[in-house]
Amino acid sequence: MLLVEPARSTLFTDSRYTFQAQEQVTGAKIHIAKHGLLLAAAQALKKRRGRLHVAYAPSQVTVGQKAALEKLTGTGVRWVSGGDAVERLRAVKDASELATMRDAAKLISQVFRETVPKIKTGLSELQVAAEIEYGIKLKGGSGPAFETIVASGPRSAWAHARPSGKLLGKNELVVLDQGAILRGYCSDLTRTVFLGRAPEKVRRLYEAVLEAQQAAKDAAGPGVKAGEVDAAARLSLKRHRLAEYFTHSTGHGLGIEVHEMPRLARDEEIELEEGMVITIEPGIYLEGLGGIRIEDDVVVTSNGAEDLTSASREFLEL
Amino acid sequence: MLLVEPARSTLFTDSRYTFQAQEQVTGAKIHIAKHGLLLAAAQALKKRRGRLHVAYAPSQVTVGQKAALEKLTGTGVRWVSGGDAVERLRAVKDASELATMRDAAKLISQVFRETVPKIKTGLSELQVAAEIEYGIKLKGGSGPAFETIVASGPRSAWAHARPSGKLLGKNELVVLDQGAILRGYCSDLTRTVFLGRAPEKVRRLYEAVLEAQQAAKDAAGPGVKAGEVDAAARLSLKRHRLAEYFTHSTGHGLGIEVHEMPRLARDEEIELEEGMVITIEPGIYLEGLGGIRIEDDVVVTSNGAEDLTSASREFLEL
Repeated sequence: MLLVEPARSTLFTDSRYTFQAQEQVTGAKIHIAKHGLLLAAAQALKKRRGRLHVAYAPSQVTVGQKAALEKLTGTGVRWVSGGDAVERLRAVKDASELATMRDAAKLISQVFRETVPKIKTGLSELQVAAEIEYGIKLKGGSGPAFETIVASGPRSAWAHARPSGKLLGKNELVVLDQGAILRGYCSDLTRTVFLGRAPEKVRRLYEAVLEAQQAAKDAAGPGVKAGEVDAAARLSLKRHRLAEYFTHSTGHGLGIEVHEMPRLARDEEIELEEGMVITIEPGIYLEGLGGIRIEDDVVVTSNGAEDLTSASREFLEL
Repeated sequence: MLLVEPARSTLFTDSRYTFQAQEQVTGAKIHIAKHGLLLAAAQALKKRRGRLHVAYAPSQVTVGQKAALEKLTGTGVRWVSGGDAVERLRAVKDASELATMRDAAKLISQVFRETVPKIKTGLSELQVAAEIEYGIKLKGGSGPAFETIVASGPRSAWAHARPSGKLLGKNELVVLDQGAILRGYCSDLTRTVFLGRAPEKVRRLYEAVLEAQQAAKDAAGPGVKAGEVDAAARLSLKRHRLAEYFTHSTGHGLGIEVHEMPRLARDEEIELEEGMVITIEPGIYLEGLGGIRIEDDVVVTSNGAEDLTSASREFLEL
């Protein structure tokens, strides 16, 4: 828990993290709490003079935690909702954060490139996911940013399928959705490959998704509403009569967490700003045939959006 | 989000999970929400007759979510805290849950056994952690239950060190803390090994931790307070003048989440019950020298506690 005051900041943690906090925390005093973080924070607040107004992040604090804090601090503290102030601060990345996110995106692109030659019929989805997560750690990532998705054949039509023991089969689509955490920041990359020579129909579907992704990228820029980027992808798919198969939103903010502000979804009014990092990931899902999703990470620049992801978007037939 | 009513249950999810929900959900109606889970749940509640009292789990619901729910349901619903009812239900496992947790504990024990021959000086902590997580997935686990800890030499004195690029060195302690998720349930296993022939002092410290762990296991049983199990480990270490180096609690409940009720910590009054699954994991941490922790998963039985973990607790000098 972090307590931010005009003149100082205090990080409350416990004795398991004593050494780690000393090595990693800068810019805040470290407080090792003996009997829980809530009690330690409440006691610190009670030492301050006067009647305090303390803002909390309502998306991070549970109802139970807030009730405990209120009880512990009593009438001396008035707790007020901080709204989405923290999320908004985090949505726009500074130069140092962008450098890290560039590295995180490069890392997962490299892992994907090195995974491609290993994707073969007869391997299970879990084996391929294991290879990917192994690669992330070997390249110095602290781990996957989320449970790696490897979904093949009919299972690729599940946008968020967990990898299973199912073996990859001939003439199947395989959706691979993977991300790495590097120095505390996430990357997120999806590619779809075909095992064998793809029928013309599948190839056309892939091109349509790629076109929609490019349309969304082209639409992104400072001052553009998040919903407009989503609409660009949808409109592009509509031209191919595929909009109904695009069953999720176009993307999301990316940073310390894999899902941050802004959401790139229908009618989202929030305006993109220079320095925001977002994913652009339209996909279509046809029961029986499978799914196709293509996802890159981009940073909003002064006049558009720039790819952080370097993996090729060419349709791979393996 | 799950809405439980006397005559039915409804799971609210979104279109990304349409197919997966059909395959995996039993015992609840599936509702695919178009505009957010909160809105869908609120609309469902508004269709019910009469003035409703709806209990929520305060440790799972954020202040922001509760405020949104209150606004969406208006005066027709009175939201009341469900306290820790859900956590208490989850703390005691039924036969089918226990069977799964036995398998999850067996899986991580096997992964550890197969990892031991690979632990060598010159490998980085991250490489060893990558091997472990690779093993978890290859054996059919859906992934690690938490970020695998591999901490060597002085870093082993950080109870919750994240694995780094540091290479394992000769005459170092290595703490390996790993867990697998299998069919939705967690296991959690810690072993400490020595690279080389351990000095007599280190061997004695290891024996003291093992003794403390056994003391805690012997203390566990139905009707015993969680704090008494913690006290047993502490008393045992105190006899060796090591209690001050045991800087965390003795263990925690384990299940769908890696940390569940009960906490096995100082003065915890909650009584153990038959069917609870807990970890027993005393450890000591000496700055400079390193750390030693030994952790097993046990189930509380009708007259004591039974190991789920099968990995040997013998001190390994590699």
